[in-house]
Amino acid sequence: MNDEARKKVKSRVNRIVGQVTGIGRMVDEDRYCVDILNQISAVRSALDALGVELLIKHLEGCVVGHGTGSEHHCARPMTKEELLAEVQTALSRFLK
Amino acid sequence: MNDEARKKVKSRVNRIVGQVTGIGRMVDEDRYCVDILNQISAVRSALDALGVELLIKHLEGCVVGHGTGSEHHCARPMTKEELLAEVQTALSRFLK
Amino acid sequence: MNDEARKKVKSRVNRIVGQVTGIGRMVDEDRYCVDILNQISAVRSALDALGVELLIKHLEGCVVGHGTGSEHHCARPMTKEELLAEVQTALSRFLK
Amino acid sequence: MNDEARKKVKSRVNRIVGQVTGIGRMVDEDRYCVDILNQISAVRSALDALGVELLIKHLEGCVVGHGTGSEHHCARPMTKEELLAEVQTALSRFLK
Repeated sequence: MNDEARKKVKSRVNRIVGQVTGIGRMVDEDRYCVDILNQISAVRSALDALGVELLIKHLEGCVVGHGTGSEHHCARPMTKEELLAEVQTALSRFLK
Repeated sequence: MNDEARKKVKSRVNRIVGQVTGIGRMVDEDRYCVDILNQISAVRSALDALGVELLIKHLEGCVVGHGTGSEHHCARPMTKEELLAEVQTALSRFLK
Repeated sequence: MNDEARKKVKSRVNRIVGQVTGIGRMVDEDRYCVDILNQISAVRSALDALGVELLIKHLEGCVVGHGTGSEHHCARPMTKEELLAEVQTALSRFLK
Repeated sequence: MNDEARKKVKSRVNRIVGQVTGIGRMVDEDRYCVDILNQISAVRSALDALGVELLIKHLEGCVVGHGTGSEHHCARPMTKEELLAEVQTALSRFLK
């Protein structure tokens, strides 16, 4: 990731930290259970969106760009097949 | 929720805050994308488990216990049918 | 479930069978991969909605109605605590 | 997809058709609700696995292989950026 991309990802992560902290506050304030559940669903969606964004960046930089010299952040030396197998594992973990 | 239950839920929430903060640190350290994705999956599972726990507590205290005098934390006056419809909505939001 | 409820559930299940059969046809016709993926997402949502409906019926008939004589279809003798633990397991399986 | 790959995918789809038909039979036989829910979870996992497999095949054949002459089944003319945007949309739909 370049600096601008990392900054964007960081601000998304910080927003999620804020949302989870907010859930803790709702528990402290003894808020209605279903309202807390709704907040948990919102964090889940934010996490999923972050995961998809990172996965697409990974596909873009490491899998598709493989062998073009753009994979400087893709530390591990792998073939395209290995990279796709790794993406498959990551996706299965997300969907399970 | 009684004090002990709330304490347990709070410590789960705090653990999740720590996990998400850890994801931010991984982004700062420019860690390998797939490792970050795995960490996101772990947080997702922790959130889901928290959601299911809260939902079960809600069913226990507010839906099943409805009309038995145990629903002092279930602020909104509802019929059992309304409570179940609300649970259905919360669940659909989780699964969507 | 009474006859009317069962009929409704059966027609939902039959619709899902039709959708999955349609996916097979798309594969035969060598349709574009992303279109097939969209169809799979649609079936997934239909399955989730069916699962939530059955879970709510179960809560209504067996968990909430427990001990009121309405649980004639809830074959296994269980306490409310056991029923809720079972719902928790089923939900966790759904969300994993 | 080549013939062998399509045959494998078709047999997975047929297995899922069989599983959903089995759910219909369980409803007919008035089987215990939680057992039906477990079966629905199993079909969901099978669908997710099928979706991930198709997505990886799509990445392999159309996105990574883009511009190498191997994309004969990727009917729509697109840039790599458009292909990745399409994958992102498909993934978001899966995770929502």
